[in-house]
Amino acid sequence: MERRSFLKKAGAGIAAGAAVGLAACGKTEQQQAAPAAPAAPAVQTGLPSIQWRMTSSFPKSIDTLYGSAELLTNRLREITGGKFDIRVFPAGEIVPGLQALDAVQQGTVEMCHSCSYYYVGKDKTFAFGTAVPFGLNARQMDAWIIGGGGQELLDEFYSAYNVYSFLGGNTGVQMGGWYRKQINTLEDIKGLKIRIAGIGGEILSRMGAIPQQIAGSDIYPSLEKGTIDAAEWVAPYDDEKLGFYKVAPYYYSPGWWEPGPVVHFYVNKAEWDKLPKEFQAAFRAASREAHIQMTAMYDHKNPQALARLLAQGVKLQNFSTDIMKKAYEVSRELYAEEAAKNPAWAKIYGEFETYRKSQNAWFSVAEAGFDRFMQSVR
Amino acid sequence: MERRSFLKKAGAGIAAGAAVGLAACGKTEQQQAAPAAPAAPAVQTGLPSIQWRMTSSFPKSIDTLYGSAELLTNRLREITGGKFDIRVFPAGEIVPGLQALDAVQQGTVEMCHSCSYYYVGKDKTFAFGTAVPFGLNARQMDAWIIGGGGQELLDEFYSAYNVYSFLGGNTGVQMGGWYRKQINTLEDIKGLKIRIAGIGGEILSRMGAIPQQIAGSDIYPSLEKGTIDAAEWVAPYDDEKLGFYKVAPYYYSPGWWEPGPVVHFYVNKAEWDKLPKEFQAAFRAASREAHIQMTAMYDHKNPQALARLLAQGVKLQNFSTDIMKKAYEVSRELYAEEAAKNPAWAKIYGEFETYRKSQNAWFSVAEAGFDRFMQSVR
Repeated sequence: MERRSFLKKAGAGIAAGAAVGLAACGKTEQQQAAPAAPAAPAVQTGLPSIQWRMTSSFPKSIDTLYGSAELLTNRLREITGGKFDIRVFPAGEIVPGLQALDAVQQGTVEMCHSCSYYYVGKDKTFAFGTAVPFGLNARQMDAWIIGGGGQELLDEFYSAYNVYSFLGGNTGVQMGGWYRKQINTLEDIKGLKIRIAGIGGEILSRMGAIPQQIAGSDIYPSLEKGTIDAAEWVAPYDDEKLGFYKVAPYYYSPGWWEPGPVVHFYVNKAEWDKLPKEFQAAFRAASREAHIQMTAMYDHKNPQALARLLAQGVKLQNFSTDIMKKAYEVSRELYAEEAAKNPAWAKIYGEFETYRKSQNAWFSVAEAGFDRFMQSVR
Repeated sequence: MERRSFLKKAGAGIAAGAAVGLAACGKTEQQQAAPAAPAAPAVQTGLPSIQWRMTSSFPKSIDTLYGSAELLTNRLREITGGKFDIRVFPAGEIVPGLQALDAVQQGTVEMCHSCSYYYVGKDKTFAFGTAVPFGLNARQMDAWIIGGGGQELLDEFYSAYNVYSFLGGNTGVQMGGWYRKQINTLEDIKGLKIRIAGIGGEILSRMGAIPQQIAGSDIYPSLEKGTIDAAEWVAPYDDEKLGFYKVAPYYYSPGWWEPGPVVHFYVNKAEWDKLPKEFQAAFRAASREAHIQMTAMYDHKNPQALARLLAQGVKLQNFSTDIMKKAYEVSRELYAEEAAKNPAWAKIYGEFETYRKSQNAWFSVAEAGFDRFMQSVR
């Protein structure tokens, strides 16, 4: 009964929530003055107790990633006095890590914490939600998704998969991985056996590398034995734990295939629509807290880990301009080909590219000018 | 007083309907506001209706800054079914913009939305919460405050002022302002009448400039008449509205005195401590949402505004390396002097500097490497 009245309000709740959120940054006073959705009389008998399961695509050992899901669920319990109770499961415990989205789509679990680009096998368009090579950095992804219409474009695409998406973290630019030997020229890419997945792997493949897909736990022995020549993982804090530096000392930068990877909370549409609007609002706020927490904690931990790695003799290297430029060119070819055959990709790609250029025109001014100076005087 | 009369009314009206919202969360102990509502048990045991006033240091016209306070309050009303109801007042309506913190300290209002560096007249240490010249950028401020112990250091300092602080936005690196003539050498700084406040103004003063403190509305006529030679404000989106480009076409970058200015929500300690823990949790989450919203909206709007300004003939300039280096040196002198005489400053400064160096060592690798390349190919 009370749940039914929540159901009725749910549709309006979503719209009202979105309107209020955006109105706060709207241009006109009228928009700004948009009142909060009025309280619902039907709730007089109290909000329901709701228990959800969230399957994570990450193991607990990747604590910064995994931890942001726990932050969301802890905060929601605090806000609702324990009534909105989401239990987090590590990858593989109830659903394999790379099938998290499918489980939400099918309603096996109510939600997941995952990266959209794990699902490029279904449709390359999934990459835009997390990261496309040579795409947007972390702040630019926020600007695009929150302010630039990205959320709407992504949700339109995701709607075929029966999910809503919410920002749920960002690692910042990742590193370019660990290499047993130096990679100086385009020739050195040819025949390189490198552990890398997704579109980044496709680009490297077109450049002559031989991408390998290997589970995290198998990377170290493969590098040690020389079964592979290189492997990409995340960035100093996570990479350090797996000890790659002991067997592949050249640590390349930047991870141009993961410039500002967004992690998402995906929620089953029907389950979301059933939530009281109070819980929806709490989820919107707490998921943003989890989102920023992840980046802040990576930014806090990576410098310390990098210093420790350098003290271990790790050799920090930059990809040469030749390699960067070639990879960029190949990415443009690949994206144009995809646009020609995939309307979903084409629709987002056009707007994404325009946005990227505009963003970089601005970020090259004050942000880059300041950072460059500060990096020169440290 | 006002709050009390609201609470009385709440018993009769608003709360009876809105109570609803989190009535079900009513695990909390009986709160002071629980009205005697005869026929509604859920209300009896529910959370109180709480009405707060937030005074902003900003006018409504600076909509991205002002709007993030509205986002917080709208979201809190949604989450609590209208029970936690904070009304935002623009600067000057109930409290002058630069006295917002004092009003919270004294309990005139429960909270404010302000920048800590407005209060450096009380103690220079206030600058660390928002921005010190040549300090941390926006992501680094998040890392320091969320992960690096910054929140604890700041709260220890703020405790003498009877407030708790919460992240409430960041503009990103600001611009270096509008100049009637080009500023090429250190000589050009001498005698420069520039509208700038705070520590940035002190540094420029030591370099020979004559800092001016002028209200926002007086800047344009002062620049037009030549009463001042230059003025700093925010960044393209806000600057454009005031039309400075018409009278001072040289637009300098970066605003090294405001590298990642954090806006804060300050809450009166006693009022915070009286909140039900559900409302505290909701506030923590929603304030983070407001925090990220501000940066995302600035990052979204600034590129478009910059493009419009350039189309108007604005001449984008970088401060010369000589000027940047001298300003940096002067900042180090000033900070060391302050550390020698102000233990509160000294305590934070030491940790802040160590953190800054570590952060820039890491940001110079993947983030800068990626951004530099993307800015070269746009």
